[in-house]
Amino acid sequence: MTGVQARVETALARLLPAADALPPRLHAAMRYAVLDGGKRVRPLLAFAAGGLAGAAEARVEVAACAVEMIHAYSLVHDDLPCMDDDVLRRGKPTVHVEYDEATALLVGDALQSLAFQLLTEHPLNDDAARQLGMARLLALASGSRGMAGGQAIDLASVGKTLSLPELESMHIHKTGALIRAAVLLGARCGAPLADEDNLDHYAKCVGLAFQVVDDVLDYEAPTATLGKTAGKDAAAGKPTYVSLLGLARARELAEELRSEAHLALQPFGARAARLAELADFIVLRKF
Amino acid sequence: MTGVQARVETALARLLPAADALPPRLHAAMRYAVLDGGKRVRPLLAFAAGGLAGAAEARVEVAACAVEMIHAYSLVHDDLPCMDDDVLRRGKPTVHVEYDEATALLVGDALQSLAFQLLTEHPLNDDAARQLGMARLLALASGSRGMAGGQAIDLASVGKTLSLPELESMHIHKTGALIRAAVLLGARCGAPLADEDNLDHYAKCVGLAFQVVDDVLDYEAPTATLGKTAGKDAAAGKPTYVSLLGLARARELAEELRSEAHLALQPFGARAARLAELADFIVLRKF
Repeated sequence: MTGVQARVETALARLLPAADALPPRLHAAMRYAVLDGGKRVRPLLAFAAGGLAGAAEARVEVAACAVEMIHAYSLVHDDLPCMDDDVLRRGKPTVHVEYDEATALLVGDALQSLAFQLLTEHPLNDDAARQLGMARLLALASGSRGMAGGQAIDLASVGKTLSLPELESMHIHKTGALIRAAVLLGARCGAPLADEDNLDHYAKCVGLAFQVVDDVLDYEAPTATLGKTAGKDAAAGKPTYVSLLGLARARELAEELRSEAHLALQPFGARAARLAELADFIVLRKF
Repeated sequence: MTGVQARVETALARLLPAADALPPRLHAAMRYAVLDGGKRVRPLLAFAAGGLAGAAEARVEVAACAVEMIHAYSLVHDDLPCMDDDVLRRGKPTVHVEYDEATALLVGDALQSLAFQLLTEHPLNDDAARQLGMARLLALASGSRGMAGGQAIDLASVGKTLSLPELESMHIHKTGALIRAAVLLGARCGAPLADEDNLDHYAKCVGLAFQVVDDVLDYEAPTATLGKTAGKDAAAGKPTYVSLLGLARARELAEELRSEAHLALQPFGARAARLAELADFIVLRKF
């Protein structure tokens, strides 16, 4: 675990309500859903972008945790029987298996509220109007024209043959929007960046690459390594980059996106080294 | 329908994504969940409180719609099979019956995001720091120590005998927090109020009275009048004010809360006439 990952784990534990706070079952389940799991890719990206913008780490930490609360809520709801009906997540029973469906529903709902609470109660920018814009960015990334919209497109696509642009549009919404929010929110804890469009383009490439690699790993890896049920998307008749392009071309596409992400970082020079490393990590990871 | 209700209906229709915007099924279902339904009690309260604080109606309208998006999302999730498993709401099939469970889940998720989008993208107060505080208030009212927490307490209480303070605590969270947010957000679109604590106390009395009256009506009214399945709480072994206090004492309690609400408004004099009328409406309503 990197220093940032350990720092984020500690911050998440601090920013979540205590497990014995009323109502205790809900709060214990929220902590179960969020803590001790995941690669924390979005927080890592937020910290790297915050570093680029010279942002105070205490601020980036809160923004990173807000994004991670949204991510965790989406996994809890996505695992529910009416969605992907999955029993395993990050090597542990999913929330509705460990607790119950109603609690899992409320865990997701309350984690989403908590994300917006974090972005509005901690000082993340000296300019309150700019901070309002940060909360708005997360709302857009999470909602019907962002992540939740991507889930809906995903539902509608089961058993269909999608074109590459359609598959891309689904993932830009479903995972790309929140990864983009992680990068931009990290940066916006600092001073305005002259080349923010470049950072935005980096975030889009990395978000898409993340999904392409996910599809490749889902096709290749055994469940034990992945920490979640492998091969489910293909089995469920969901279109994936591998089913659409084949394994070799999907791997090539991930490489192309990695190059494009590196290229987008050029105006920032050495200050963007950490972001470049993360693009490599996302594409070269084995789990 | 009052002028305010018609105005809110138009504003909700405008602020929701168009039914043909991608993804169309999700957006159509979001509109189905929110539009053409309900008494709009929370928006009415927001407008009355905004009037008291001299707030611009265009601002109050957005705040009122944000609260109503949260309320609508909570109903959609509350009606799901894993929660109350209800098929009828506002005289129409519930969202998961009219669409499907997965869509209903996403509708609720996306409506919550939309509420925070509204509170952060429209200018609601000249002071951006004060507006950040408004978004924070809604996040707290919606989350695990507000409405979602109340739902969790409700789940845990099924089949149990609660004391009056325990029942009150459940409702303060489950419905009271959002009604309080409606009142305070309406007021906070205007200039700071000298006696905001009084307004807050009014909101708490009205929020609790609303629930007591709901329990009385649920006990008395036929399903057709109520627009939702009557007598369900009692049948499900859920504690209600009627089951705990009896019908006569529950009615008395509603009257006491109405008097207390009126008393809390005294410092505002005639400016609070509309809020006083709403306290009467909430307690004296027959549906």
